[in-house]
Amino acid sequence: MAGTGREFFTVKTVAQALGEFRPRHRTAVETVTLSAAAGRVPVDEVRAQQPLPGFDRSSVDGFAVRAQDTFGATDAIPAYLQIVGQVRMGAAADAAVSAETAVAVPTGGMLPTGADAVVMIEHTQEAMPGTIEVTRPVAPGEGIVRGDEDLAPGATIVRPGRPMRAQDVAMLAACGIVELAVHARPRVAIIATGDEIVAPETATLPPGHVRDALSVPIGALVTEAGGQPTASAIVPDDRDALQDTLQRAIGFSDLVVICAGSSVGGRDETAAAVDGLPHAEIWCHGLAIKPGKPTLLAHSDGIPIIGLPGNPRSALVVFRLIGMPLVRRVAGIIAQPRPGTVRARLARNLPSAAGRLDVVQVRLNGDRAEPLFGPSALLSVLTAADGYLIVPEDANGLSDGDPVDVFVYD
Amino acid sequence: MAGTGREFFTVKTVAQALGEFRPRHRTAVETVTLSAAAGRVPVDEVRAQQPLPGFDRSSVDGFAVRAQDTFGATDAIPAYLQIVGQVRMGAAADAAVSAETAVAVPTGGMLPTGADAVVMIEHTQEAMPGTIEVTRPVAPGEGIVRGDEDLAPGATIVRPGRPMRAQDVAMLAACGIVELAVHARPRVAIIATGDEIVAPETATLPPGHVRDALSVPIGALVTEAGGQPTASAIVPDDRDALQDTLQRAIGFSDLVVICAGSSVGGRDETAAAVDGLPHAEIWCHGLAIKPGKPTLLAHSDGIPIIGLPGNPRSALVVFRLIGMPLVRRVAGIIAQPRPGTVRARLARNLPSAAGRLDVVQVRLNGDRAEPLFGPSALLSVLTAADGYLIVPEDANGLSDGDPVDVFVYD
Repeated sequence: MAGTGREFFTVKTVAQALGEFRPRHRTAVETVTLSAAAGRVPVDEVRAQQPLPGFDRSSVDGFAVRAQDTFGATDAIPAYLQIVGQVRMGAAADAAVSAETAVAVPTGGMLPTGADAVVMIEHTQEAMPGTIEVTRPVAPGEGIVRGDEDLAPGATIVRPGRPMRAQDVAMLAACGIVELAVHARPRVAIIATGDEIVAPETATLPPGHVRDALSVPIGALVTEAGGQPTASAIVPDDRDALQDTLQRAIGFSDLVVICAGSSVGGRDETAAAVDGLPHAEIWCHGLAIKPGKPTLLAHSDGIPIIGLPGNPRSALVVFRLIGMPLVRRVAGIIAQPRPGTVRARLARNLPSAAGRLDVVQVRLNGDRAEPLFGPSALLSVLTAADGYLIVPEDANGLSDGDPVDVFVYD
Repeated sequence: MAGTGREFFTVKTVAQALGEFRPRHRTAVETVTLSAAAGRVPVDEVRAQQPLPGFDRSSVDGFAVRAQDTFGATDAIPAYLQIVGQVRMGAAADAAVSAETAVAVPTGGMLPTGADAVVMIEHTQEAMPGTIEVTRPVAPGEGIVRGDEDLAPGATIVRPGRPMRAQDVAMLAACGIVELAVHARPRVAIIATGDEIVAPETATLPPGHVRDALSVPIGALVTEAGGQPTASAIVPDDRDALQDTLQRAIGFSDLVVICAGSSVGGRDETAAAVDGLPHAEIWCHGLAIKPGKPTLLAHSDGIPIIGLPGNPRSALVVFRLIGMPLVRRVAGIIAQPRPGTVRARLARNLPSAAGRLDVVQVRLNGDRAEPLFGPSALLSVLTAADGYLIVPEDANGLSDGDPVDVFVYD
């Protein structure tokens, strides 16, 4: 009776899972408008057709001049220039600058013909009506943004495989690009398995039952990673029922998440059901991570399937570390984001077994990171945490006072 | 002619703006279902009505026993127990444990009456059909999650004023709480001003004009901060037209953003138009930040108004630092998130004036942070950046090789 069900035949490290588990499926291509483009992943490189800002502009409020007319100007010996016009915002500069003349120009205004610099208004004084004194010289190009300085024709605006940030959509807007081809958001099916699982809206629990605590938060993490949870189902610990549900899910999903039973029986049924899918490959059954060892990574015809541990806390830890990067990859993202951390000092000794990556929940108290312990069945350890730290595979634990990097939940 | 328009009469620091600019308006209260709850801000504290998991459960696959029956058990001298039943997942435990007996129980199964511990299956062997040998003692409580161990009645599930994270909605799901009262998402009106500004979809630019590069990315940052951009408009540099638009925007918005003209004239019109709104107070006109000095913070009857600098790059920098926290505050968020950073070494000297906070865009090259320079009119400096670092007010610059914390754009 003892034994076989608890063995993990194909245990991999987290680094292996992130680097080597590469199912080939990617989401379809769709077109989005600019206002919906932030966070989306371009399919193609987009290059500038025209220069930006498109015309030479003043970068200050002042006077457009020929720089040479200001050379040597000081407070004591200013250069005198005749004002021959004024540029209005949003209009062509209709006056031209010639020797010993100046044209008033606001920040962002078009540079008049003949001018090669703009003197800031602070470095001028009105000598008499229609004439200014310039009290500091300007070099050619000073006070000016060249017409192709922000973007030259042919320059790259956005790259494929990298989610667009606010500044990227700003540049697209500036260029007049108001729609573009992006990867569709990954549709993610979330399947909870277990004879003991009932829907969250169940008011009174039958004996021995618990509510599905995972489908909704996993859906939230899917959304955070740029995907969309499309369907969720609760399936009993029955191989045929699970395989049937999986088969249908594979048909309309880009990624499938199974919140697997935590008992040996539940895990066995999950692995067997996945193995029976078309063109299925179980890539690993067991991860060198704590909590989260009973994780299954597989694919069916290139569509990734992640079988999460049954304990809600372990499942959420594994989905953050492994599932969210998978959602991003399916969406065509090439380089995963570098998550930021907050520095802290460990508030107690933290033993850890070498060869296994430990994810330790912590509460932040000033600059001290206080580890939170408890069975991995407890969600409350996660809700009490401000973030987590990672004890890598090659470490034998950490000591009280050690500097640590905390990944903060926001 | 020189002077007055360029002066900033009420310059504040970034720390003052974040700590002391506190318009009183908050969004309304609405009810959301659980699947839409992640990231939303609860209005009230929510406490547990019932314990979780709700019944004593096994945390391992094994045998429920009386701990005392295993005391002293070893490989050499095991304890022999008679199997008197088996617990199924999702069912009441119908067998009871008495002296010298055991009941098989899966992970998550209900603990049978009479048992006070569960022996892991790895520490047992089948001695003969119906009898197991236990080869290691268990202490009372071992292998068990108590019925109120995850959550005791009366314990806090979520707190008001803090956005709900994945684990918080997991706990709500486990408790069967499928809707709750949250602050509505802040509706944010975005108004671009300037005679030179045309809509992004303008295919051919008239002379001296540029496309509105700010409304869309500011909208994206609003969304990222939990708000929703509700309306955008482009208004010429005309005080009455702007005041009219502002007045209407105030009527249906929780926060108003003005992407102000960058010329003196444009700034003057913005300040005057804001000042003319009902119960208006201009809190600051000028921030000690580079880039971004020409920032205006005001409110009309408690509804915050942020006037951004005209340069798109400055505007995006200021909106990240000041605008996003304002959106969160209006949504009822009490404690702002602690953003994580990536450590790097500065790749060159970085001069900076004391008394002013400098936001420096950087490209990350391995562990080196390479500052990007260029006029603040250039969006391309932002699109080329991987993140930014902050040189605080009290620093006189940083040196090549200094360790720096980089806030990464994702």
